[in-house]
Amino acid sequence: MSGNTFGKLFTVTTFGESHGPALGAIVDGCPPGLPLSEMDLQQDLDRRRPGTSRHTTQRREPDRVRILSGVFEGVTTGTSIGLLIENTDQRSKDYSEIKDRFRPAHADYSYHHKYGIRDYRGGGRSSARETAMRVAAGAIAKQYLATQGITVRGYMSQLGPIAIDFKTWEAVDDNPFFCPDPEKVPALEAFMDRLRRDQDSVGARITVVAEGLPPGLGEPVFDRLDAELAHGLMSINAVKGVEIGAGFAAVAQRGSEHRDEMTPQGFLSNHAGGVLGGISSGQPLIAHLALKPTSSITVPGRSIDVHGNPVEIVTKGRHDPCVGIRATPIAEAMMALTLMDHLLRHRAQNAGVQVGTPVLR
Amino acid sequence: MSGNTFGKLFTVTTFGESHGPALGAIVDGCPPGLPLSEMDLQQDLDRRRPGTSRHTTQRREPDRVRILSGVFEGVTTGTSIGLLIENTDQRSKDYSEIKDRFRPAHADYSYHHKYGIRDYRGGGRSSARETAMRVAAGAIAKQYLATQGITVRGYMSQLGPIAIDFKTWEAVDDNPFFCPDPEKVPALEAFMDRLRRDQDSVGARITVVAEGLPPGLGEPVFDRLDAELAHGLMSINAVKGVEIGAGFAAVAQRGSEHRDEMTPQGFLSNHAGGVLGGISSGQPLIAHLALKPTSSITVPGRSIDVHGNPVEIVTKGRHDPCVGIRATPIAEAMMALTLMDHLLRHRAQNAGVQVGTPVLR
Amino acid sequence: MSGNTFGKLFTVTTFGESHGPALGAIVDGCPPGLPLSEMDLQQDLDRRRPGTSRHTTQRREPDRVRILSGVFEGVTTGTSIGLLIENTDQRSKDYSEIKDRFRPAHADYSYHHKYGIRDYRGGGRSSARETAMRVAAGAIAKQYLATQGITVRGYMSQLGPIAIDFKTWEAVDDNPFFCPDPEKVPALEAFMDRLRRDQDSVGARITVVAEGLPPGLGEPVFDRLDAELAHGLMSINAVKGVEIGAGFAAVAQRGSEHRDEMTPQGFLSNHAGGVLGGISSGQPLIAHLALKPTSSITVPGRSIDVHGNPVEIVTKGRHDPCVGIRATPIAEAMMALTLMDHLLRHRAQNAGVQVGTPVLR
Amino acid sequence: MSGNTFGKLFTVTTFGESHGPALGAIVDGCPPGLPLSEMDLQQDLDRRRPGTSRHTTQRREPDRVRILSGVFEGVTTGTSIGLLIENTDQRSKDYSEIKDRFRPAHADYSYHHKYGIRDYRGGGRSSARETAMRVAAGAIAKQYLATQGITVRGYMSQLGPIAIDFKTWEAVDDNPFFCPDPEKVPALEAFMDRLRRDQDSVGARITVVAEGLPPGLGEPVFDRLDAELAHGLMSINAVKGVEIGAGFAAVAQRGSEHRDEMTPQGFLSNHAGGVLGGISSGQPLIAHLALKPTSSITVPGRSIDVHGNPVEIVTKGRHDPCVGIRATPIAEAMMALTLMDHLLRHRAQNAGVQVGTPVLR
Repeated sequence: MSGNTFGKLFTVTTFGESHGPALGAIVDGCPPGLPLSEMDLQQDLDRRRPGTSRHTTQRREPDRVRILSGVFEGVTTGTSIGLLIENTDQRSKDYSEIKDRFRPAHADYSYHHKYGIRDYRGGGRSSARETAMRVAAGAIAKQYLATQGITVRGYMSQLGPIAIDFKTWEAVDDNPFFCPDPEKVPALEAFMDRLRRDQDSVGARITVVAEGLPPGLGEPVFDRLDAELAHGLMSINAVKGVEIGAGFAAVAQRGSEHRDEMTPQGFLSNHAGGVLGGISSGQPLIAHLALKPTSSITVPGRSIDVHGNPVEIVTKGRHDPCVGIRATPIAEAMMALTLMDHLLRHRAQNAGVQVGTPVLR
Repeated sequence: MSGNTFGKLFTVTTFGESHGPALGAIVDGCPPGLPLSEMDLQQDLDRRRPGTSRHTTQRREPDRVRILSGVFEGVTTGTSIGLLIENTDQRSKDYSEIKDRFRPAHADYSYHHKYGIRDYRGGGRSSARETAMRVAAGAIAKQYLATQGITVRGYMSQLGPIAIDFKTWEAVDDNPFFCPDPEKVPALEAFMDRLRRDQDSVGARITVVAEGLPPGLGEPVFDRLDAELAHGLMSINAVKGVEIGAGFAAVAQRGSEHRDEMTPQGFLSNHAGGVLGGISSGQPLIAHLALKPTSSITVPGRSIDVHGNPVEIVTKGRHDPCVGIRATPIAEAMMALTLMDHLLRHRAQNAGVQVGTPVLR
Repeated sequence: MSGNTFGKLFTVTTFGESHGPALGAIVDGCPPGLPLSEMDLQQDLDRRRPGTSRHTTQRREPDRVRILSGVFEGVTTGTSIGLLIENTDQRSKDYSEIKDRFRPAHADYSYHHKYGIRDYRGGGRSSARETAMRVAAGAIAKQYLATQGITVRGYMSQLGPIAIDFKTWEAVDDNPFFCPDPEKVPALEAFMDRLRRDQDSVGARITVVAEGLPPGLGEPVFDRLDAELAHGLMSINAVKGVEIGAGFAAVAQRGSEHRDEMTPQGFLSNHAGGVLGGISSGQPLIAHLALKPTSSITVPGRSIDVHGNPVEIVTKGRHDPCVGIRATPIAEAMMALTLMDHLLRHRAQNAGVQVGTPVLR
Repeated sequence: MSGNTFGKLFTVTTFGESHGPALGAIVDGCPPGLPLSEMDLQQDLDRRRPGTSRHTTQRREPDRVRILSGVFEGVTTGTSIGLLIENTDQRSKDYSEIKDRFRPAHADYSYHHKYGIRDYRGGGRSSARETAMRVAAGAIAKQYLATQGITVRGYMSQLGPIAIDFKTWEAVDDNPFFCPDPEKVPALEAFMDRLRRDQDSVGARITVVAEGLPPGLGEPVFDRLDAELAHGLMSINAVKGVEIGAGFAAVAQRGSEHRDEMTPQGFLSNHAGGVLGGISSGQPLIAHLALKPTSSITVPGRSIDVHGNPVEIVTKGRHDPCVGIRATPIAEAMMALTLMDHLLRHRAQNAGVQVGTPVLR
């Protein structure tokens, strides 16, 4: 299977460049009988959409998605689902001057060496614009998971140096940062305004949580739920780290502290982040991801051109000063896609398993 | 593809339980013409082997590997390679009392709900014993990568609260911790002795590095090199987090700081950890992983049995007080397997790419 | 991987229903640097296109294909290629009466039981209309194979009871049957006219041939070249049989007759059809496929409805009286896709193989 | 996934050469809770075993299979199942003289060009000896299918020029040919005795049938049940053709004849062979396969050596004069593996489909 497909049973295959005519995806393996409309997808796309606040890129894309197959009379048929979003606000002239230059921390250098050719306009395929199709496909997964009582939600847990504690889910969609603490929003805005003035960028930490999972999802020993989730999350542009549950904090923990003890009333903690031995435990599945600062900044930087000559780079154009700000819906999408795939894989092999209701929930 | 296979072109499929008769693997896709002997595999297996110091489990397994196919007159033939290790020191009687109980932080609870049945002896398939086959398969990958000038090495970068800076590769194999700083070894030993007295366990952080990589490995947008590497590393027992390059530190970095500038003499830093846009840049590939503390400890813990009744658990038997201590060769193996798979995938599509020598090395 | 993807490295994923808004495909894994335009695809699409002679369905579809990604300045970039064909002549009212009925020999009955729901308009996803995307994707494969000196061509070798011997490739595209013997065309036309009068349908046999193949393609023991080719060809609507080389005639052959002897000047025969041990031998790759008669006929037939009641079915609408007539470009496409996938797979593992030029060509 | 794995959810990966120390397989994805013993596998292995009559090779292999994992207390656990058969009667000295020569119709020539190296002893990996592991793995699939009321059986339907009509299943295992017509057995024996005198070989046609299938198995548009079955059957050594149902006879049929009409009492015929639109219809699944004559014969033949020089080849050693004679259990195994994989794939996506009992059975 080539690199533009995610999943094994519930698969998403995508195409599209930043400045090409359109982005598209094929979602295969969706169970039949699921009510689905373009509106269901649009909702999440609108959450990821650029140009909705002063803190993100000013490129204006309506990201209007069309469902071209696999849905009949408002319900999925089990056949492959074709999705399409036309690009409407690409401006190729902005990019011609970087045609022969490698922008630092961008994929220019590695694409050049991998393929020997690249669509340099807006980063081409390496642009985060492709994540629109992840969000659209993820919305289908979410829609199905919801019918099984499973929700997938995310929030920003750190912006640059500012750590953000989780307060309420309600707050998350009320600000442009997906910040779960309304009291932190002014600080975030002030920080971003200062950053824009400095013409610099910054990283972010996002947390995603799935609730309502049955125990049993995950396919050891290699396709553990956490391993596939790490794959999915790390495949998002700019992600440099993934943690499950306690993550790197587990390094300094003792076993007596880390282990989540159980009583008939339930688990007493969730350092595991909802995964034991690579299989969901029924506790909330919790992952954190680290996004690096946006590479496109107007602070001049040293680089080389395709001939090896030194050049100075200033990346103009319309860019997010923090790619992490719009990353929450994308991270949710990748978690939803991973869970959907594993739900189907688990059912395939274990259709006949009868262990009654989980011992704990 | 089911859960016991890793890779797409260079694939490793494994079987084996902690207390079954044997562990085995099939490595498929190995290029023909590679000199390979059982000795080449044994070397890495011996580095992972239990019972070699007082700081690891006292189970004594020679882990003697046999190559059953795919090698003819000392050279690989391109056909599938069968590997086998007999278990010799399993003692099933140690485990009968946990038959109906879920040990906290173990896979008992999740395996029970996934499959409705489990081989409870020593954790069965969920035991870290399966990683022996990863190391054996990884040694084949390393052997081939070496012919391409690529090395994969790892070390312990943190034990519990003790951070370890990288000093020299030479030191790594001179102590039971894979510690790259000889001066830190006494502190590690003291810490471990205290921990054993407390009958507790602790986590660790491992760092793995590949050098000599060509730019171009990785298959965007989903099968990026870093994403697949995260998959491989997170699939190792007890791993709770994976970082590439700067990892979570990138969250607080500014773009002007994080980006690795380039000059005709090379990159000026490596915060990216050797990956740009999901494709190797030719810089060293650097990953860090967090391992949780061993779950098997003799500090009593609360749990339940399969009927939902409360029980107190004390996990006796022969266990590693820090699973991270033997994890370095396993992490190396997973990185080597990932690279090998991507080397083949890259060649498949890009055999005709002629971009000359890399602009930078 | 779900059912709408073909190939492992050079993959084609398709979507689209007979009466939906559009058909689409994503081709992933195409080597970069290949000159490619919509015109290159259109050529083969026009050969498959309906409505071009009185012997095929009168549905008028221009089948105009758009390339939406993966091609930059006329050359492939190595990223996924999005393809789209809008449906323009669907007439859904023709089909409403078969909504609750199972047309004999159609997929109605099996889709109903698999998915519990089906888009009944024109057969929905089970319509041969989906093969347009196979042809479009196959044209990309052909384009690349041509750069390697490999050609894939097909012809009709039997129409109903009329066997057709191969005469010249030149004749094949000069008649609506892909008949390689110009002298047989009048007989075919007369046969088809009679068949239309009878309102019945008939089967056909198609032969596809690849020339210029290097020896070495195919991945034993399961993904042999012939096995994957059989997979690809049998996946075409209405195909009921596949032969490689001598095919079923080999049953009655003796070993001394079947084996293709070799001399320094070359093979003396090609009963093997170009495959030895599942790997291409460098001889022409030859496959034959049997297509069943079209299921949609106006001769009344007995069937049942979704409630199990007996009904009489007469399938009106616009149908091909012999689906085999337009099958040649589709069979070529599936052979080209199979070869392309295997060319890449072979290169991946055997990039370093140096056996000089083939001993025979 | 590399070439030595079959299936996507219920996967079989094999290794082993004709003259290596052992053959092995890993079966992954088996549902937990299935009673399984080595005896269950041995039964089918004994049916395929060489040396049981004068009509097959005189190599004596007990083919004693061991289950090394995945089964606990007589029941499958859902983890990967390791299988091993030691080779005991390999005699490498028989083969040294063909080291540098290409035996006509063998895989020698193509393996040489693919890999640049080959284990020439007994054909190495290309030997039909590998099919022992297919049979062992297939027996696991059969065991599970039986719990679902599905049986898979096969018989010889033609030996060289002698067509064999199906009479009774009872007869099939009562003679060394898997001949379903006891009255034909003497003719087969006489034919084979004559053939051995001529030191020549002959082809055979095998028919395999699955009964008790539910409607709904198969994953259009590429992974249709018939397409995957064709893949599986064509991957068996020496197979040159595969037919589903009417097969090539469908070419000359009219639509009014071929279509299987339905009444409330059931289908009136089964020209489709149990597959409609690539999905099982619930009728018996019927496939035929053509096996070429054994390539190893002592009638001298012209060939070349690895340097391109002409040589005369006489293949001594112990060979089956008709590989088709032992092919029935292998064909059954491949059909069982295909069905098992599709049963799981169907369940994965369609777990929630509620269409009641099939309209017809």
